[in-house]
Amino acid sequence: MKTKDRILIKSLGLFNADGERNVTTNHIAAALNISPGNLYYHFRSKEDIIFALFQAYQSSMLDSLSVPQDRVMTYDDKMGYLEAIFNQLWEYRFLHRDLGHLLEESQRLRVAYREFAKKVMAQAYQVYSGLREADLVVIGEQEVRGLIVNIWIVTTSWASFVTSSGFFGDEVALSRSHLRRGIFQIICLEAPYLKGEARDRLSELMRRYEGIENESQPNASQSVELGVLTD
Amino acid sequence: MKTKDRILIKSLGLFNADGERNVTTNHIAAALNISPGNLYYHFRSKEDIIFALFQAYQSSMLDSLSVPQDRVMTYDDKMGYLEAIFNQLWEYRFLHRDLGHLLEESQRLRVAYREFAKKVMAQAYQVYSGLREADLVVIGEQEVRGLIVNIWIVTTSWASFVTSSGFFGDEVALSRSHLRRGIFQIICLEAPYLKGEARDRLSELMRRYEGIENESQPNASQSVELGVLTD
Repeated sequence: MKTKDRILIKSLGLFNADGERNVTTNHIAAALNISPGNLYYHFRSKEDIIFALFQAYQSSMLDSLSVPQDRVMTYDDKMGYLEAIFNQLWEYRFLHRDLGHLLEESQRLRVAYREFAKKVMAQAYQVYSGLREADLVVIGEQEVRGLIVNIWIVTTSWASFVTSSGFFGDEVALSRSHLRRGIFQIICLEAPYLKGEARDRLSELMRRYEGIENESQPNASQSVELGVLTD
Repeated sequence: MKTKDRILIKSLGLFNADGERNVTTNHIAAALNISPGNLYYHFRSKEDIIFALFQAYQSSMLDSLSVPQDRVMTYDDKMGYLEAIFNQLWEYRFLHRDLGHLLEESQRLRVAYREFAKKVMAQAYQVYSGLREADLVVIGEQEVRGLIVNIWIVTTSWASFVTSSGFFGDEVALSRSHLRRGIFQIICLEAPYLKGEARDRLSELMRRYEGIENESQPNASQSVELGVLTD
């Protein structure tokens, strides 16, 4: 593996585990057993690393939301979107735990984040157009605009809701199943507009996603795909 | 006015205008033309002031959500809740611009915030029970639970959505009408469940709240009610 990729993967793991504010480039270099100078050769600052990780997050998020061009969308596509989005949130969870701070510190991240939000919401609009064509949702124009903004907000704010609201108990540490529970909230947002197979399977889905599984999964940040980390 | 109240009102104004991180107790004392010692006599730290402001925010938020005991709820009650909630968000907007940071810094604020979230969601549940009795909404048990969490998240995250998403333009400064536009998002959340007068007036409401008014209002933090600031 190239040193640049090793730095990104290690940084992501450390940011997710310890919080971005508590990790310096020296920590990252030490954890990789490389010199600070070697790290500096690849990334001139922590902000550089954060920005590269954001770009990787962006690519995989936009990939997850692509609409099939050659066929009608299916119910499984629909569930696939939700699973993929919340997987990405988990892989890059440090981004959403302290987004306000990260955006305040980096002007280019603020610009890129706004572009990203625009692209995701435009792609979500395509997804709902596809679902309409596939007769899986019935929703008006104004409603779909409102829905997409609400989905964006609930999705990107879910991690901080889990840790700050006390909804899942006091001083909760974010786990993969807590994050996954956010899918239930998105299903609630969509529920009134579902039709056909999507409506028929709704109560089964609500049951499946409302609970929190007790799991002790391996650190998922290790499983991040390398493809998206090389630019 | 008591010095303690003057300190709270001035602090609120400064936190809202300049961001809590950029305001020290010395700034506050200087702005009031009192000595740091006098301020210290009333509040031993900035965290003390923030906590007192949070308590004031909490009281007025819970007051705004109280359910009439002696009569059936009306459509105007329903709109009154939304207006009141978003007014409180505006008055105390510093709290929601950087909540993650504030919670990280203060253990008692974390505890109080969780209690607050529980109380608000329980009161929202009472509101929806009232609206059901008044035949203004039709909604199932699981749906109302999901809806209340989504309303909480969209409401408390709306300020950061406005400033970070680019949805209202680049590098937007939060205004009262931006915040008020959040009411549209809450109406979208509720829309599928409305009935009777609430449903009949829905399209009028959606039109009224979807736009952003161009306004240059006086600094609204001045209009905060004193009652809730004295404990």
